[in-house]
Amino acid sequence: MSEFNLIETYFSWSDTASSVIKGVGDDAAIIDIPNDKYLVTSVDTSIAGVHFPIETPAIDIGHKSLAVNLSDLAAMGATVKWFTLALTLPSFDKPEDTQWLEDFSRGLKTLANQAACDLIGGDTTQGALSITIQVMGVVDKGTALLRSGAKVGDLIYVTGTLGDAAIGLATIIGDLKIKHLSDLDYCQDRLNKPTARIVESKIIKQFASSCIDISDGLLQDLGHVLKASQVGASLNTREIPLSPALSRINRTIAMQAALSGGDDYELLFTIPQSCNVDFLETVNVNVTCIGKINQNISIIMDENGDPLKASGYNHFNG
Amino acid sequence: MSEFNLIETYFSWSDTASSVIKGVGDDAAIIDIPNDKYLVTSVDTSIAGVHFPIETPAIDIGHKSLAVNLSDLAAMGATVKWFTLALTLPSFDKPEDTQWLEDFSRGLKTLANQAACDLIGGDTTQGALSITIQVMGVVDKGTALLRSGAKVGDLIYVTGTLGDAAIGLATIIGDLKIKHLSDLDYCQDRLNKPTARIVESKIIKQFASSCIDISDGLLQDLGHVLKASQVGASLNTREIPLSPALSRINRTIAMQAALSGGDDYELLFTIPQSCNVDFLETVNVNVTCIGKINQNISIIMDENGDPLKASGYNHFNG
Repeated sequence: MSEFNLIETYFSWSDTASSVIKGVGDDAAIIDIPNDKYLVTSVDTSIAGVHFPIETPAIDIGHKSLAVNLSDLAAMGATVKWFTLALTLPSFDKPEDTQWLEDFSRGLKTLANQAACDLIGGDTTQGALSITIQVMGVVDKGTALLRSGAKVGDLIYVTGTLGDAAIGLATIIGDLKIKHLSDLDYCQDRLNKPTARIVESKIIKQFASSCIDISDGLLQDLGHVLKASQVGASLNTREIPLSPALSRINRTIAMQAALSGGDDYELLFTIPQSCNVDFLETVNVNVTCIGKINQNISIIMDENGDPLKASGYNHFNG
Repeated sequence: MSEFNLIETYFSWSDTASSVIKGVGDDAAIIDIPNDKYLVTSVDTSIAGVHFPIETPAIDIGHKSLAVNLSDLAAMGATVKWFTLALTLPSFDKPEDTQWLEDFSRGLKTLANQAACDLIGGDTTQGALSITIQVMGVVDKGTALLRSGAKVGDLIYVTGTLGDAAIGLATIIGDLKIKHLSDLDYCQDRLNKPTARIVESKIIKQFASSCIDISDGLLQDLGHVLKASQVGASLNTREIPLSPALSRINRTIAMQAALSGGDDYELLFTIPQSCNVDFLETVNVNVTCIGKINQNISIIMDENGDPLKASGYNHFNG
């Protein structure tokens, strides 16, 4: 199958929105950005064996490759609109490649449709399996959620539960056994089919002073907020939200996963105390207050005043 | 070296333009697109051993990875503004990696500065060497050059000379020997350090009815224009511009490279006959008329009426 046939067969299903002046099929895509919006864009590469286990089903790889990018735009309080796909595969013309491409594009397309995110261009090349997606969206001028806005006294919140994906990965690579099959499935699904917190982002952005998505682990990503905002944090580790599945495993392991495990794609954000009552009255999604911003620049302490060391996942050391 | 240090050391040298509201260092970049412009964007992946020989100097890889993307925007008649970099390397912390990164980022930065193209974000991951760059630019609304605008009677032009890069590659992989050392250097430079035709694009877009950059070979890329425009072409192969270096090698080999060789990144465009006099009076760059558009949909003929078969480089078959 030629590169051109491949694109037509699997990846020419979109660019129907009125904002897409020219989608797949020319030297570049052309997009109309509304006058009152900024363009917001982020790129993430997913590599087999690094960002997902080699044996991950293709449909999940398609889903996750896009989800991790949607998560970045959710963390900015932006509305996702378009994406490009640079897909590198070892081969394209074997029978199993056809099945892989069908499954991968189905996973991608299903999430893209759910998120109303149009595929507007891309590139296909031959090499070690790798997927680079660049997502683009818009945000009303002056309303983006940055990492740099946290202020002393702000409350620290997270969406959902933490550590599930790290435990899912531990079960896949054989580091951990989980008794209940439904817990095992839940954790592995959290790893392979993460949910970008797009809905939550819309509510959070009305109140939050800063936001980041937790891709590298709570402590590491909180560290980015603290550095960008020139503040510190005190966490109430007992409040860190764990799923029922994680509450049934060894608590030390669960807490390590929740503090340092990556791939959860929950949002970590700060709410000024003056907005907190309004926020809690408005919010209709699962959020938990886990601490407070203080003046100890880039230091994270627990409720006993002991330092919590960021040992989050790092693509080069981890 | 951690991912974060690496980005700060090698890739945090840009995003100074006033249009960049937020560059490298948050979950996503934020860009201000002028009200009278469309966003134009293209993505290309370069893989070691596929898009450039493994032994290519890192400085040239840096240059070429960006140049091939700039070329896509030149083919649209767009002004380049920003780019993202998704860089995958086998390792980052060996002494030779530091040298590679220094050289690669120097090649990238030099061209980015020349082209006034800001690095606004990216991702670094560990794996087989691969570089995905997404370039973004703007075009006045309604003025983009598409593949689909060629009309019967339009004249077919190319910039520069064709086939040089393919001959450069043939010498590197040992398929061809070239007598003169300066010709060898010239052809290998055309392969490793292509020039995106940004300057030429500004002049061409005032007159052209369609445009594409020649990345996969003249016949294949002309085929894309013909298909998109639903027209055919008659080429005067004797007019196809060859460099002095190619005029000194076997003519059959030189013509095969000029017709089917990829990686030249010259522009192929069509000029309506009614504009041709004005175009030739205005144009102050090297362009050559090589044929005419006719009604024989998707067929390319030579001056004798014989069909010319597109056998251009294809990433999966070639």
